[in-house]
Amino acid sequence: MLFHVEMQVSLPHDLDPERAAALKLDERERAQALQRSGQWRHLWRLSGQYANISVFDVADAEELHQLLSSLPLFPFMRIEVRPLNRHPSSIHADDR
Amino acid sequence: MLFHVEMQVSLPHDLDPERAAALKLDERERAQALQRSGQWRHLWRLSGQYANISVFDVADAEELHQLLSSLPLFPFMRIEVRPLNRHPSSIHADDR
Amino acid sequence: MLFHVEMQVSLPHDLDPERAAALKLDERERAQALQRSGQWRHLWRLSGQYANISVFDVADAEELHQLLSSLPLFPFMRIEVRPLNRHPSSIHADDR
Amino acid sequence: MLFHVEMQVSLPHDLDPERAAALKLDERERAQALQRSGQWRHLWRLSGQYANISVFDVADAEELHQLLSSLPLFPFMRIEVRPLNRHPSSIHADDR
Amino acid sequence: MLFHVEMQVSLPHDLDPERAAALKLDERERAQALQRSGQWRHLWRLSGQYANISVFDVADAEELHQLLSSLPLFPFMRIEVRPLNRHPSSIHADDR
Amino acid sequence: MLFHVEMQVSLPHDLDPERAAALKLDERERAQALQRSGQWRHLWRLSGQYANISVFDVADAEELHQLLSSLPLFPFMRIEVRPLNRHPSSIHADDR
Amino acid sequence: MLFHVEMQVSLPHDLDPERAAALKLDERERAQALQRSGQWRHLWRLSGQYANISVFDVADAEELHQLLSSLPLFPFMRIEVRPLNRHPSSIHADDR
Amino acid sequence: MLFHVEMQVSLPHDLDPERAAALKLDERERAQALQRSGQWRHLWRLSGQYANISVFDVADAEELHQLLSSLPLFPFMRIEVRPLNRHPSSIHADDR
Amino acid sequence: MLFHVEMQVSLPHDLDPERAAALKLDERERAQALQRSGQWRHLWRLSGQYANISVFDVADAEELHQLLSSLPLFPFMRIEVRPLNRHPSSIHADDR
Amino acid sequence: MLFHVEMQVSLPHDLDPERAAALKLDERERAQALQRSGQWRHLWRLSGQYANISVFDVADAEELHQLLSSLPLFPFMRIEVRPLNRHPSSIHADDR
Repeated sequence: MLFHVEMQVSLPHDLDPERAAALKLDERERAQALQRSGQWRHLWRLSGQYANISVFDVADAEELHQLLSSLPLFPFMRIEVRPLNRHPSSIHADDR
Repeated sequence: MLFHVEMQVSLPHDLDPERAAALKLDERERAQALQRSGQWRHLWRLSGQYANISVFDVADAEELHQLLSSLPLFPFMRIEVRPLNRHPSSIHADDR
Repeated sequence: MLFHVEMQVSLPHDLDPERAAALKLDERERAQALQRSGQWRHLWRLSGQYANISVFDVADAEELHQLLSSLPLFPFMRIEVRPLNRHPSSIHADDR
Repeated sequence: MLFHVEMQVSLPHDLDPERAAALKLDERERAQALQRSGQWRHLWRLSGQYANISVFDVADAEELHQLLSSLPLFPFMRIEVRPLNRHPSSIHADDR
Repeated sequence: MLFHVEMQVSLPHDLDPERAAALKLDERERAQALQRSGQWRHLWRLSGQYANISVFDVADAEELHQLLSSLPLFPFMRIEVRPLNRHPSSIHADDR
Repeated sequence: MLFHVEMQVSLPHDLDPERAAALKLDERERAQALQRSGQWRHLWRLSGQYANISVFDVADAEELHQLLSSLPLFPFMRIEVRPLNRHPSSIHADDR
Repeated sequence: MLFHVEMQVSLPHDLDPERAAALKLDERERAQALQRSGQWRHLWRLSGQYANISVFDVADAEELHQLLSSLPLFPFMRIEVRPLNRHPSSIHADDR
Repeated sequence: MLFHVEMQVSLPHDLDPERAAALKLDERERAQALQRSGQWRHLWRLSGQYANISVFDVADAEELHQLLSSLPLFPFMRIEVRPLNRHPSSIHADDR
Repeated sequence: MLFHVEMQVSLPHDLDPERAAALKLDERERAQALQRSGQWRHLWRLSGQYANISVFDVADAEELHQLLSSLPLFPFMRIEVRPLNRHPSSIHADDR
Repeated sequence: MLFHVEMQVSLPHDLDPERAAALKLDERERAQALQRSGQWRHLWRLSGQYANISVFDVADAEELHQLLSSLPLFPFMRIEVRPLNRHPSSIHADDR
């Protein structure tokens, strides 16, 4: 099942720089592992923003929430989730 | 270049039914031709809405606007365009 | 899978009264059939509004969109869909 | 009487970790007690968010406010309350 | 139980003038009957708007929705309902 | 003259607890004095929120602003003021 | 007493041109009469909009609403009213 | 003086097609004349929208409003005007 | 040239009280000097808010921005600027 | 390719003054270098705000994001990016 996810990151300016750097590194590693497993299908940066547009390919909402809520930057993100469907005009039987 | 495009369709209830049907058919054919050419890279339906989330893969904003403004349903759509970038944590050299 | 769905109905004042009455009757029958099948799990009226809050229990987003987009009043509704998860503090293994 | 309640939690990043952990534990215990008493009828997590959608089944608004304002995380939540009604198309005499 | 209700009226400019006049007259009579019965406790006009702020004193949300949805101008109004509580700093045991 | 006032209170989580307690006590005493004088005509709690809906009965906007801006919690409140009028359908010559 | 009033005019495109012209003429005459009486203290056009910012100088909200609701274009305007006070840093005893 | 102007065009779907075509032609001619005179300094299309971002170079707000309100499509546009200043970090003495 | 300016002040609760007092005093003196020079034409308090509505009478946007950005409370204000025009229905040749 | 960029700057009041001054200086130097290279085509201040409206002239979204995300004040800015197109009514073959 596909989910459209938009994440806006907002780090407090007084966050300890070392902790911030560690969080970002962990986030990157986690994001790459989830891409390799095929669960984090697309990951794009929004121009000019500390934000991304992503497409997740997971079994259901439970798996999605497990992934999102365990991201190292989760406490600092505003996340919007919208379920996606195959579009009737799509030429792909399985557009991911 | 990739663009994230969200289209919300709103057909007036007093639109002539035959014209509406013809518009939808034309829209579908146009959407499929643009998918075959590779310009309309992804096309998903938003659950419960007469709306889609799309990713376009075009040379620049000029080509994008040409495509969008020539869609048969363009006069009845609210369209939001946001440019996409490769994300620094993406494992794909060229994620489309 | 559970989805939280909010529907706001807005009928044009110049809609033919007979068509409006027929649409409402069809909507009611469809809603009741979907409740009997267990797919439309909860259906509540929002006080003072021509609107409802619903919980759907379906296999996935495809089934949900099939149901919603085939509702007789679909063309006159603004619909918001949000996926629901089991809450970690819920005492129910399967709260529907 | 049924109330639809949406709670968005927002913990300050500089909140003492021990106090945060204690608050969450107390919140969980309180939420479970209210579910057992039948007052907190449904409790769902919104995917990707530190937020829930709940349905309360209480005598009136006074009882509702007593419950909500005594939640340990109340000072850190944005809460929206909307009264629910039986829907005329519901097949349940008493849908909770 | 007290509910805070805000109603914004918006009559289409092409509504038949006689029907509009009849609707307004019926609305007025209904509003006055509900005031006399004590259910429509307060009724104020918002300055410069075709809108009112009201306080209803009813048994529960069911009674409230019955009253509001049967108002002659209901199809032309946007209504917002918010439940009210006794305030801990109120000096009135029963402020209506 | 009547004014409809909505106050949303938002205390910083790192406010000194003793100062917070003193502020709330002062606010309560001030609110009760203004109710006794008849200037703060109605005071209701909004369910589930640290907020109130109030009706003030004062000579003019000057008197209203004097009262509001001297409230102990004024620096921590977002306040919305809307002037009220007698409604043409009111059955009360002087609905307060 | 001073009120800050913002009026946004929105004439339906299918309004009869003669009726529109008559409404505008009446509105102008009424606006000028109220300026001469001193009740409509300031009247400015917002650049690029069919809208104005005005300051009314009236006895109270009742007089204000009488004036505004009797304007010929009232049914076609969205009006926002905000009461004004003398500012503590004003050098004018009576700034109008 | 420079003004930043954003125009969103919204033509009613039941506008007579000949009148619509004539309006667009007039609008185009007027826009080009104002560009030649130097008053309409920049004119860009927003991708995917029937909308433009413009920069006007005029003596003052009076001249700006004269130009904007005399555009043939003015009754069908939502216009937002914001005054621009030389930026302290600009390397142009006169950036137009 | 006239500009309509709305300023919302928001002082952080942990701002040093002496600095806050000094800033307010400076702001007041600056505001009064600009009123005496005729540049700050009107200055009103919005009821119930730490905010003002002002009308500035300056040569152009450059002069306006110089004045606003040099106000002592500028770093703590959200400011909205809108250019004003003579209204065609105004009876004043020069309404300030 | 042209992009319309709006930047709102918001410096925390407790940011170290020396760091703030250094950031501003760096930002200014970077902005001027990008103007000299022709990538930052226009840079205007919005009246009364710590904000700018800019036009960037870059190869694509990748180059744009590189420039924006490397600005010294980037962590303190809210940035909105919108792609621009040549307008069909523009008299300039290449309006920059």
